[in-house]
Amino acid sequence: MADIIHRVGVKAPVSKVYTALSTVEGVAGWWTKETSGSSKIGGTIEVRFHSPDRKEIGRMSMEVVALDPNKNVHWRVTAGPEEWVRTDVIFNLSQEGEYTIVLFGHKNWRAANEFMSHCSTKWATFLLSLKELVETGTGKPSPNDIKIDNWN
Amino acid sequence: MADIIHRVGVKAPVSKVYTALSTVEGVAGWWTKETSGSSKIGGTIEVRFHSPDRKEIGRMSMEVVALDPNKNVHWRVTAGPEEWVRTDVIFNLSQEGEYTIVLFGHKNWRAANEFMSHCSTKWATFLLSLKELVETGTGKPSPNDIKIDNWN
Repeated sequence: MADIIHRVGVKAPVSKVYTALSTVEGVAGWWTKETSGSSKIGGTIEVRFHSPDRKEIGRMSMEVVALDPNKNVHWRVTAGPEEWVRTDVIFNLSQEGEYTIVLFGHKNWRAANEFMSHCSTKWATFLLSLKELVETGTGKPSPNDIKIDNWN
Repeated sequence: MADIIHRVGVKAPVSKVYTALSTVEGVAGWWTKETSGSSKIGGTIEVRFHSPDRKEIGRMSMEVVALDPNKNVHWRVTAGPEEWVRTDVIFNLSQEGEYTIVLFGHKNWRAANEFMSHCSTKWATFLLSLKELVETGTGKPSPNDIKIDNWN
């Protein structure tokens, strides 16, 4: 098993960051505009990604496994790229001074392959998009996401 | 052992990316302006980081373990934060169409702790700085690096 891990600090109250992670509207503001579904525990969030010329380049479904207000959001991937299915996406929140610290994990990959490397870098850009969304009101969700390589 | 991995694609010939990774001047253009030492095999590269108010916030030394022109750069950390010492920093290069693909690994961390999470996100920003440097001529090396949290 292999894990992607990241840490960002958002200059904002923890409740604002939690809202951006625990609602469909919030996720649509930093990850992909094409976010739909139910963000309640037991619900399924669906995300889709299109290239600038409107070709679908990704689609995933995640079950909301746990929500601990202002502390933790836990999704389990139920559909999408084979490598993603049955992995866990986890956000842990805490307050440090004027920052909300987000400890992120995309855990339990079966192998540390090239696609995982791509996703690791891509997650960093989306977490910085989350920081930007909460701090300024505008993130960089897909299709306005930062392009990192020839895959996306 | 735990690894940080990333993937970026640079729209440039592989030789340009290799030069940015295998010379002191190159590294100073995307990681930290305060890069010095010898970038030959067996040499030691030293990097330092200062906060905007000129407080030293980091310093590492890395031995150049292997250099395979246009293919591979391998450093081993010999001094710096305890967690970094005896870890490996590896860049593998390949050409895919008009892109040079950089597969990055900062490998052999003893534990996947919060500092490793910070470094994972930070490496993503430095690899995007490398991409920017080679594609446009100007990167974002420290102290002009992207700040991600309350640590840097």
